[in-house]
Amino acid sequence: METRTAIHVEEAMERLMSLKKRGPVEYVPILECEGRYLAEDLVATHDVPPFNRSPYDGFAIRAEDSVHASADSPITFQIIDAIAAGEVSEKTIRKGEAIRIMTGAMLPNGADAIIMFEETDEWEENGEPYMALKRPVEKGTNISFKGEDTKQGEVLVRAGTKINPGVMALLATFGYDAVPVVKPLTIGILSTGTELLEVHEALIPGKIRNSNAYMVYAQIKQAGMVPKMFRQQSDDFHDCLTAVQKALQQVDVLITTGGVSVGDYDFLPDIYRELSANVLFNKVKMRPGSVTTVAELNGKWLFGLSGNPSACFVGFELFVRPLANYWNHSRKPFPELIEATLTKSFKPNSFTRFIRGKVDYQNGALHAVPVGLDQSNMVAALSEVEALIVLPGGEQSYEKGEDVKVLLLNHRSGNETFL
Amino acid sequence: METRTAIHVEEAMERLMSLKKRGPVEYVPILECEGRYLAEDLVATHDVPPFNRSPYDGFAIRAEDSVHASADSPITFQIIDAIAAGEVSEKTIRKGEAIRIMTGAMLPNGADAIIMFEETDEWEENGEPYMALKRPVEKGTNISFKGEDTKQGEVLVRAGTKINPGVMALLATFGYDAVPVVKPLTIGILSTGTELLEVHEALIPGKIRNSNAYMVYAQIKQAGMVPKMFRQQSDDFHDCLTAVQKALQQVDVLITTGGVSVGDYDFLPDIYRELSANVLFNKVKMRPGSVTTVAELNGKWLFGLSGNPSACFVGFELFVRPLANYWNHSRKPFPELIEATLTKSFKPNSFTRFIRGKVDYQNGALHAVPVGLDQSNMVAALSEVEALIVLPGGEQSYEKGEDVKVLLLNHRSGNETFL
Repeated sequence: METRTAIHVEEAMERLMSLKKRGPVEYVPILECEGRYLAEDLVATHDVPPFNRSPYDGFAIRAEDSVHASADSPITFQIIDAIAAGEVSEKTIRKGEAIRIMTGAMLPNGADAIIMFEETDEWEENGEPYMALKRPVEKGTNISFKGEDTKQGEVLVRAGTKINPGVMALLATFGYDAVPVVKPLTIGILSTGTELLEVHEALIPGKIRNSNAYMVYAQIKQAGMVPKMFRQQSDDFHDCLTAVQKALQQVDVLITTGGVSVGDYDFLPDIYRELSANVLFNKVKMRPGSVTTVAELNGKWLFGLSGNPSACFVGFELFVRPLANYWNHSRKPFPELIEATLTKSFKPNSFTRFIRGKVDYQNGALHAVPVGLDQSNMVAALSEVEALIVLPGGEQSYEKGEDVKVLLLNHRSGNETFL
Repeated sequence: METRTAIHVEEAMERLMSLKKRGPVEYVPILECEGRYLAEDLVATHDVPPFNRSPYDGFAIRAEDSVHASADSPITFQIIDAIAAGEVSEKTIRKGEAIRIMTGAMLPNGADAIIMFEETDEWEENGEPYMALKRPVEKGTNISFKGEDTKQGEVLVRAGTKINPGVMALLATFGYDAVPVVKPLTIGILSTGTELLEVHEALIPGKIRNSNAYMVYAQIKQAGMVPKMFRQQSDDFHDCLTAVQKALQQVDVLITTGGVSVGDYDFLPDIYRELSANVLFNKVKMRPGSVTTVAELNGKWLFGLSGNPSACFVGFELFVRPLANYWNHSRKPFPELIEATLTKSFKPNSFTRFIRGKVDYQNGALHAVPVGLDQSNMVAALSEVEALIVLPGGEQSYEKGEDVKVLLLNHRSGNETFL
């Protein structure tokens, strides 16, 4: 049996990130890009607005013609045209003329101000339309000027951003009908354990249904990658070895669950040795998941996660997720780190703990609330987890009311560094 | 022209929610359920653990046999069997006997305690394995008892929950290979505006590309519904009417963008009248989006959102989203409401404002940060929006440093009431 050297979680992260690489670009139709990650910066391909335009329904005039207008002596304008949004007037406004203009329409030639309908009186005389104005307006009034919102060439959204409704609006505005997104990794899942039943199988004594594989499947999807489920394996060394070898031919990354401990049937370390994989670490001073193992083989990543659901969950979030985020071009691949007030006390532990929890907003302050007990088999609690409360290892205890660090999972913004 | 009566946003919400209904159930394979909404409570179909089991690698013994064990006089046990996780021993432990047991394996008959490997010495004598123990162990030591984690029949996750990795683990554990999820609504999008170009079209004077439709498309997906994009329409009353009628035959809900104002080409109110739709409201005392219109026709919902991107975005989040959440069986269909400190001052406004912003965590406190300017055409800022800062209408101004209410968009937990 190989001897394992437990390393600090920060050291594990440093070794892990030596594997990091950016994913290649692929182009998808704009209607299929929601939730994908931008592989290139989104650049304004033109000014916004692209032309001087009216932000209101009203009349376009020459401001100088309004200088002497007052309530007592309104100034009359002849209405020479009407333009809806999307239309362009062929007329040029001259002294005493106005053009009726709708919100979003392009300012006509000669005009340099817009006056809203509400401030004018309209009438017809001999079949010709007129309007009158009771106050002077300044040049530039009520005009949305070309480029005042965004200048051509501006970087509006950085590569690595997950495409949300706002990003989608920008992509459409700037004509990205094919969107450059990151090609996802295919990540295989291979569970090991003689005790595992398939989901559709009836319970029998001594066995439980495989839950980790399905949990990890969803975690992979949430990380923006493509999951591929392999048939689960009993604890047989040669069967497992063959299954791992075959799976590796079909995926970029392989996650195994179970088989990483030091029990009589925990073959994974031996399988990695047999494959001549480069093992980055196989023991981390953390709970849960101290036996989490990461290796690399011919450019493919192998993650040996624990068979224990909580440890498996945390192992994925801590180690698979940052590499996936980096692949997706994130400049902040680590989980967002905040401070929050602990709502429960914890005794000391020599290993750094990552307590599954959630964050509660109370009176403008944040509370770090552990969910479920801190037992590593509390499957039920995992459905509520949205954060990991970090309790560094050592001799100190942690008291209710104390401020601690919290890693937010699945949060929009990430962090450039870990802890 | 119809006169419109502006109502308070709370009143608009009350009228809106009179339309609420729960979506029907459909069953999908477990591997396709991530991100869907549970249509039924998730119930534990058996105890967890389903049998008494060992949480460690070690030996199962009868506690009473260890009573006299000490460092000076260890007690010897004969090892009569070895069981891996998933196996069941056919033996019954009798006085002085032990069974080697792996993590997760079922406690053998006769045993009532587990002692970890680390606390024992092992050897062989005449080909028979033995181990010795140097201290007594109490009955029940190191046993995960049947049902101690979860009892059969317990409701673990409520209907209306979005299926995340933790929920997926529970579904697998309890044998849900077909998962009851909510059948989504099909929501059509129909944009109106002569100024609108398609995304692939080159820019020409006076025109802009349609961005709202794509933004709303992504919003619909984020709300868990199925978007259906219809061909955009010029501002022609009869074409728009026909397009709305045809679209309504293919969808459960129809969102139009543009055409809701009082400009010369804003036909939507007339179209609703022509269709004899039941208009719930067509003017709300809010900014942006005061002209947001909601109507109902033969059980289908019609949303007339503004053609202005910010107003369109807010109109969707405020009015479409809660009905969608309710349809998805949420018991908290409104956005999560928190208090946070305003980072910018605002002048009074007679209408209630929903400022697009985000929430910043600083020193355990929350800050409400407006993004972009508060101009209703700031498309670029929408990509960063994750919250709406609520500034109730009236004569009061809002100062930097003041605590205000903030609605969190797309947040896991919602709220039972609005504001």
